[in-house]
Amino acid sequence: MKVYGGIEAGGTKFVCVVGNGPDQILAEERFPTTRPDETINHTIDFFQRCAREYELAAIGIASFGPVDLDRTSPTYGYITTTPKTDWAQTDLYGKIQRAFKMPVAFDTDVNAAAYGEYHWVATHQHLDPLLYMTIGTGIGVGGMVNERPLHGLLHSEAGHLHIPHDRQADPFPGICPFHGDCLEGLASGPAMAQRWGQLAETLPADHPAWELEAHYIGLAMANLSFCFSPRRIVVGGGVMQQVGLYSKVRQQTLRIINGYIQSKQITECIDEYIVPPALGNRSGVLGAIALAIAASFERR
Amino acid sequence: MKVYGGIEAGGTKFVCVVGNGPDQILAEERFPTTRPDETINHTIDFFQRCAREYELAAIGIASFGPVDLDRTSPTYGYITTTPKTDWAQTDLYGKIQRAFKMPVAFDTDVNAAAYGEYHWVATHQHLDPLLYMTIGTGIGVGGMVNERPLHGLLHSEAGHLHIPHDRQADPFPGICPFHGDCLEGLASGPAMAQRWGQLAETLPADHPAWELEAHYIGLAMANLSFCFSPRRIVVGGGVMQQVGLYSKVRQQTLRIINGYIQSKQITECIDEYIVPPALGNRSGVLGAIALAIAASFERR
Repeated sequence: MKVYGGIEAGGTKFVCVVGNGPDQILAEERFPTTRPDETINHTIDFFQRCAREYELAAIGIASFGPVDLDRTSPTYGYITTTPKTDWAQTDLYGKIQRAFKMPVAFDTDVNAAAYGEYHWVATHQHLDPLLYMTIGTGIGVGGMVNERPLHGLLHSEAGHLHIPHDRQADPFPGICPFHGDCLEGLASGPAMAQRWGQLAETLPADHPAWELEAHYIGLAMANLSFCFSPRRIVVGGGVMQQVGLYSKVRQQTLRIINGYIQSKQITECIDEYIVPPALGNRSGVLGAIALAIAASFERR
Repeated sequence: MKVYGGIEAGGTKFVCVVGNGPDQILAEERFPTTRPDETINHTIDFFQRCAREYELAAIGIASFGPVDLDRTSPTYGYITTTPKTDWAQTDLYGKIQRAFKMPVAFDTDVNAAAYGEYHWVATHQHLDPLLYMTIGTGIGVGGMVNERPLHGLLHSEAGHLHIPHDRQADPFPGICPFHGDCLEGLASGPAMAQRWGQLAETLPADHPAWELEAHYIGLAMANLSFCFSPRRIVVGGGVMQQVGLYSKVRQQTLRIINGYIQSKQITECIDEYIVPPALGNRSGVLGAIALAIAASFERR
């Protein structure tokens, strides 16, 4: 039986799995992200061992970024200008692709997570477009639109959406080094920590921080809804672990859209419109497996 | 030789053409939008006359909206909740489709315009995703993503993007009946007229209105760039007729993105990134012809 490899290449850890889908993971290894050569060799070792035991047919990579996704570019599959300076200009795709005689797929972590939720959870429910947003150290957005990942000049950077910021209600200037008070500058985990002087996860559930956070995330949900008219927005990441935050975000989103998008899926079923990842913290790596499966079909 | 029909169904006028593309329009008629039955009968008459003279193979409709684009819906192809109350719940697609024994395609005016620019101008330049924004009485956005029009629950409503609004610099509260100071509420033609007490087209080129307008449109361009990572944004509509406005919008867009999207197409070629419609005021109706051509292939 053919099996597929998935890599979630994160800035703090790598997760490598081999399997066929959410209910069939045959091998898994997690290790911290250290130097690129060390981490990539560790990754290659894992899949070489698996390839001796299983019929490994293709590998998918879900990478932290920014990455180069332009297939015509000489730096296709590179991690490009990341603040993790060791990893800047690292040929992640090429190093893995050259180590294995099989198709290797490559995309951003958030596009892969969108693909994972789309492929394993949503596809039979016809939920296209589907967006995936993660709110943690940074804010990232990926998407499936017209059955394929959302690519363009680069990839979505909707974490940097410019949203209304009432400086009388919230004088915090934001922490984005490029934009100050863009969405990520106002609402990422580090922005919350700096605004309130304590880590987001230590703020009690009744702290006003969470209404403000839900307001900013609601503005993002409304703007993404206006732009893409998605059928589902999956929201994950560390900040979303706060009890009650999904409910607050849904209320804010409805308040901001204010009935303009006349679709029952929003007005009556917001609980199924803005949802946590059905695959939990495995959307990315299971999306990488879905990318690998798609790549194995492409190349036949 | 087969020819195709295109309808630009606007709120103030209908444009009907028969032809094969931008350089081959064989017949054209324009008439004001009056009552639905009168206007639709006029449209059907035109194409029936053309069908006697030419081998008419398919018809495409580019409609004002909002419209129902869900093929599984009983009101597919209807104009739904328009403020033009005569036209609310009008079965535009069905009335035309039943009058002709040929494929009829249907989409929003702005998706059709995006399709027109994509199909007739950009396709060989690999400019996917391509967005089309019109700034006039309202602000509308359409798009081609992964080779197909952008659809979802409904269609893009990115004219209602929520953007930063500094009420000290611009105390105007906005005119959107749903959102007040969303993009359309701040930057549409009627918003300009109400803020400055005179029609936008009568404001001189050195009036501060235009820098403010470019700032709001630049915020929209930046947000669309962050969301979609498009390869081209086509911007048209009455407000954009102002001399010098494209240049101001491009400068504001670069200032707002602030180097975050590291792509030479933006940093070095902004003149080819934010562009006026190459098809002038015919993007919509030529997009309708492109939709008709695609529909004739689909049904074969």
